[in-house]
Amino acid sequence: MKKKSVAARISTLLLLSLVVSLSLGAQNDPLPAWNDGKAKQAIVNFVHATTDRSSPNYVPPEKRFAVFDQDGTIWVEHPMYTQMLFAFDRVRELAAQHPEWKTTEPFQSVLARNQAAMEKFTSKDFEAIFTATHTGMTTQAFEAMCDDWLATATDPRWHRPYTELVYEPMLETMQYLRANGYKTYIVTGGGQDFVREYSQRVYGIAPQEVVGSAVQTEYTYDKDGQGILLRTPKVLLDNNFAGKAEDIYLFLGRHPQAAFGNSTGDRQMLEYTQAGGGAPLMMLVLHDDAEREYAYGPAAGLPATRIGEFTEALYDEAKSRGWIVISIKNDWKRIFVWEK
Amino acid sequence: MKKKSVAARISTLLLLSLVVSLSLGAQNDPLPAWNDGKAKQAIVNFVHATTDRSSPNYVPPEKRFAVFDQDGTIWVEHPMYTQMLFAFDRVRELAAQHPEWKTTEPFQSVLARNQAAMEKFTSKDFEAIFTATHTGMTTQAFEAMCDDWLATATDPRWHRPYTELVYEPMLETMQYLRANGYKTYIVTGGGQDFVREYSQRVYGIAPQEVVGSAVQTEYTYDKDGQGILLRTPKVLLDNNFAGKAEDIYLFLGRHPQAAFGNSTGDRQMLEYTQAGGGAPLMMLVLHDDAEREYAYGPAAGLPATRIGEFTEALYDEAKSRGWIVISIKNDWKRIFVWEK
Repeated sequence: MKKKSVAARISTLLLLSLVVSLSLGAQNDPLPAWNDGKAKQAIVNFVHATTDRSSPNYVPPEKRFAVFDQDGTIWVEHPMYTQMLFAFDRVRELAAQHPEWKTTEPFQSVLARNQAAMEKFTSKDFEAIFTATHTGMTTQAFEAMCDDWLATATDPRWHRPYTELVYEPMLETMQYLRANGYKTYIVTGGGQDFVREYSQRVYGIAPQEVVGSAVQTEYTYDKDGQGILLRTPKVLLDNNFAGKAEDIYLFLGRHPQAAFGNSTGDRQMLEYTQAGGGAPLMMLVLHDDAEREYAYGPAAGLPATRIGEFTEALYDEAKSRGWIVISIKNDWKRIFVWEK
Repeated sequence: MKKKSVAARISTLLLLSLVVSLSLGAQNDPLPAWNDGKAKQAIVNFVHATTDRSSPNYVPPEKRFAVFDQDGTIWVEHPMYTQMLFAFDRVRELAAQHPEWKTTEPFQSVLARNQAAMEKFTSKDFEAIFTATHTGMTTQAFEAMCDDWLATATDPRWHRPYTELVYEPMLETMQYLRANGYKTYIVTGGGQDFVREYSQRVYGIAPQEVVGSAVQTEYTYDKDGQGILLRTPKVLLDNNFAGKAEDIYLFLGRHPQAAFGNSTGDRQMLEYTQAGGGAPLMMLVLHDDAEREYAYGPAAGLPATRIGEFTEALYDEAKSRGWIVISIKNDWKRIFVWEK
């Protein structure tokens, strides 16, 4: 092999360092799925303000906590919460053991796949469905049911497992925060035990970092004298609205520094985060992209479709308290990982 | 300066490496405050069995959790739980605002420092004292009260702050487990919010890693419209007995691999840990050293003094289930850090 001249060696080195700089340059944008704008800038500014030791709002690593609502904030919630679809499928599976369901609401409508009726379900209807499908078994049996369903169920629009309908920009935000010493928690109105089954592989969030609605379990023994936990129908934590602020304190014992939500159900969580002082970050995802995802709710100029909704009142509160609204249409370059 | 010969340099290097080996040798005993014996060996064996990749009972790092009861397991609980002493002091401070307490039980006995009466307090009496001293204020006001008391109160026997009455062998055990990828949690019958005020500095355990009894908080607003949490008298988590197993699942979503307790209140926690399978470690601290600490409870051949007690039945269960009993007298070389 021909020996290279010193000049050639130097050019090679320069070229190499250029390649390295370029790739570092790309890595320097921690949020590539975001378009430049107020929302993306707010996240970057927040990280600088709270992790730069010379900042007046510096937060020591052990106090860095960021909380994320799940449905509609870090994954798709429309047209129905994913866990609700799991519950409906469970009703269909259990129907053979409950012949009376064929003529009893709300089960009758679920079995008949009566979409119009299901959209009008009251909270009492949902309670009946959750009690029938989410309680009365051991915690381990319930976890196995969740795993089985998650492994096979697919969304009818994108034909993918529900666990792939997660928002790339929010995954990037979580990763960016974790890379800067933040602990990321999910604080969901959904069932804590359902979300814990996939939180690590889907979001990089460990089960103990998931705070959600929870039923009271009851400690008892199996036939071999081993301790087991039964899921009772008693609601222990209703992790919505004020419950989110109360349960954040129950699990963390402190105010988070950042909170991400998308509905009135997240209002108190964002308020409580802000009340901790410093330079906190409060963000709300607005679903205004009917083409790439969905558009719904009053803040998108569309009718309300459920209780936890991005209402006009929430929009007003966001403005008056300085919360940042994320427009999916304008702020997100890519929505899903698989769009890359 | 005289230039060293090659031989001198080599001797220096050899000496240095000897010093390094010796100090590494000392570090190789992760539990120097323990006497050699079955208890110490069980901890070391457990760590090897669950962290050595070639072991049949290897546990991946994300599933390594160890839970510790607090009172009587990692710090002194005799003759009274520390948090009870805090509550009694709060009664005395609040007495001026409650002239009726001078003639109302259980407050009357607390104010009169009637030790005999206090030792006979029922759970209803304790509930009245906790409601009067631990509820009705914001979470922040309560935390400040805890901090003030912890900074000034001292134990009458050793004349030290209560937060120094922690067991060196158990601190070593926690550190050893953490050094091997374990997350260490406190699972206490005491108040979660009280313990969280000092858990980091005393045990190296972060507030979010403390699971304890907890009252329901209520989200509301201060006069400036900032979100605050009020402590209501409603008990949300009674983290004793079966509550410990239930709350471990609530917070962690899984079985721990190791559990340390000292009373019937820890029984279900140890059982639940064992039910997770693998090569779990369950240990109970027996207070049998009247000279260096205290001796109490039926397992020490002494009368029962309170509800959560090391009873004969617990001793039998420990034997039948293969739990390890730690004798303070025989297994602990040093009890307190300041004895060094």
